[in-house]
Amino acid sequence: MEKTGYLGPRGTFSEEAALSALKINENNLVSYPSAAAVIKAVDDGDVIKQGIVPLENSIEGSVNVTLDTLVFDSSDEVLIQKEIVSNIHHNLIAPAKTSINDIKRVYSHPQAAAQCRKYIKNKLPRADVIASSSTAEAAKIAYEQNNSAAIGTKLASKLYDLEQIDNNIEDFKENKTRFVLIGKEQAKRTGEDKTSIACFIKKDQPGMLLQILQEFADRDINLTKIQSRPTKKALGEYYFWIDLEGHIKDEIVGDLLDCLKHKLRKVRFLGSYPRSK
Amino acid sequence: MEKTGYLGPRGTFSEEAALSALKINENNLVSYPSAAAVIKAVDDGDVIKQGIVPLENSIEGSVNVTLDTLVFDSSDEVLIQKEIVSNIHHNLIAPAKTSINDIKRVYSHPQAAAQCRKYIKNKLPRADVIASSSTAEAAKIAYEQNNSAAIGTKLASKLYDLEQIDNNIEDFKENKTRFVLIGKEQAKRTGEDKTSIACFIKKDQPGMLLQILQEFADRDINLTKIQSRPTKKALGEYYFWIDLEGHIKDEIVGDLLDCLKHKLRKVRFLGSYPRSK
Repeated sequence: MEKTGYLGPRGTFSEEAALSALKINENNLVSYPSAAAVIKAVDDGDVIKQGIVPLENSIEGSVNVTLDTLVFDSSDEVLIQKEIVSNIHHNLIAPAKTSINDIKRVYSHPQAAAQCRKYIKNKLPRADVIASSSTAEAAKIAYEQNNSAAIGTKLASKLYDLEQIDNNIEDFKENKTRFVLIGKEQAKRTGEDKTSIACFIKKDQPGMLLQILQEFADRDINLTKIQSRPTKKALGEYYFWIDLEGHIKDEIVGDLLDCLKHKLRKVRFLGSYPRSK
Repeated sequence: MEKTGYLGPRGTFSEEAALSALKINENNLVSYPSAAAVIKAVDDGDVIKQGIVPLENSIEGSVNVTLDTLVFDSSDEVLIQKEIVSNIHHNLIAPAKTSINDIKRVYSHPQAAAQCRKYIKNKLPRADVIASSSTAEAAKIAYEQNNSAAIGTKLASKLYDLEQIDNNIEDFKENKTRFVLIGKEQAKRTGEDKTSIACFIKKDQPGMLLQILQEFADRDINLTKIQSRPTKKALGEYYFWIDLEGHIKDEIVGDLLDCLKHKLRKVRFLGSYPRSK
């Protein structure tokens, strides 16, 4: 059985998505310390042939390291093969018999803490919020210390032998993360697909974004995401990550991509894949 | 003298920018634990009348908490009054007589660590990188522990009595941050200005971004930044933060804003202010 890489350590939302949405057996999962490391390992192809990484969250927005690693630091062979949209619920987890009033320190990945800002302010006004590099690491530390809790997944509470003091503590209830499965094979056309591309615009082309969008409108192609990211070369110089409806094998999509390649400095094709329902 | 709030604790890039670019005396600076707290304090107006917060970095992109707090969690009275573009240099700082070979732990804000990824991989391959909530907090912890260093500003190394083991350790040399000064008065027109707005588009208006950009093109108004951010209501529903050249008192800019207000669900005017050179 082929192995699948995920953003670890154990107990992360990426692992939850791999286990529940992709139905991958835990023995076939390999943990990596960062989304960049997952993508690099897929690109190398020695240990894993595919990987699951977070792409965007409905509250926090795009996961920049995923976008930038795919666009700048991986070969053109690495493609998105599938998207998985998961509901995100945060939980306050702590060693057994901890009462919420005992909690002096809350360990959390900064993004998870940001998503529970109001809850922490109301329910844990006197606790210190301490940054950790993942929700799972936070759980590990909370297990080892007194008067400490973590913000983490249900999976993390099981793995690290903690109890759920409180559930669904996120400030915004419509909290979803879109993960993508990446690999080196192009997913087949299903008729209900999406395509991701990155469009590089030179600094002296201020009207180019308008021209790009006009090409979409002329072909009646819907954009589902547009995200500007710095090219890392100069402040104010951007590339645009664009998700559109359709598959590269659809004639109008193939035609659009050819047209954009002529107009722009660079277009990175990032894969066509079935749309999540 | 009026007090100015900044994203603290002491030793951050925000404090450096306030001291050196804005020439504010350190006695008139008030530290806040987050960009959101600075903006809220300006909005309340009790302690400070103005504040300095980071808006975007040439490598990491927009500072989402600044954008979102201005757009969602502050009154319409809070406006950008000035932009300040500063060069960002990261330094490896540690207690006196620490050699780079002794360093087992590097404390860093995750964003600073991300900007020095290659340096850490090459020069400190065996060190653990540990997340802290600010570069200044990282410096404080490094001072208290053996075999530890922090990634921080020159100002932090002075404040926390550390030495610079290595300078300018950032991976990308063109590393700049754009800070903004916020307050409740509208900056006067200088003839070389910028205006920031947030445009809310409904989910069922996929062609609206094209229409917005067409209004800019029709008036020959240059965009200098366009950033999509989630509305926090549904995955795939965005607002667009747009910076444009011109001042709201310029006739064509005023006319553009009136037109956008008619077309869109909501437009938040975020201020007109002199362009940084």
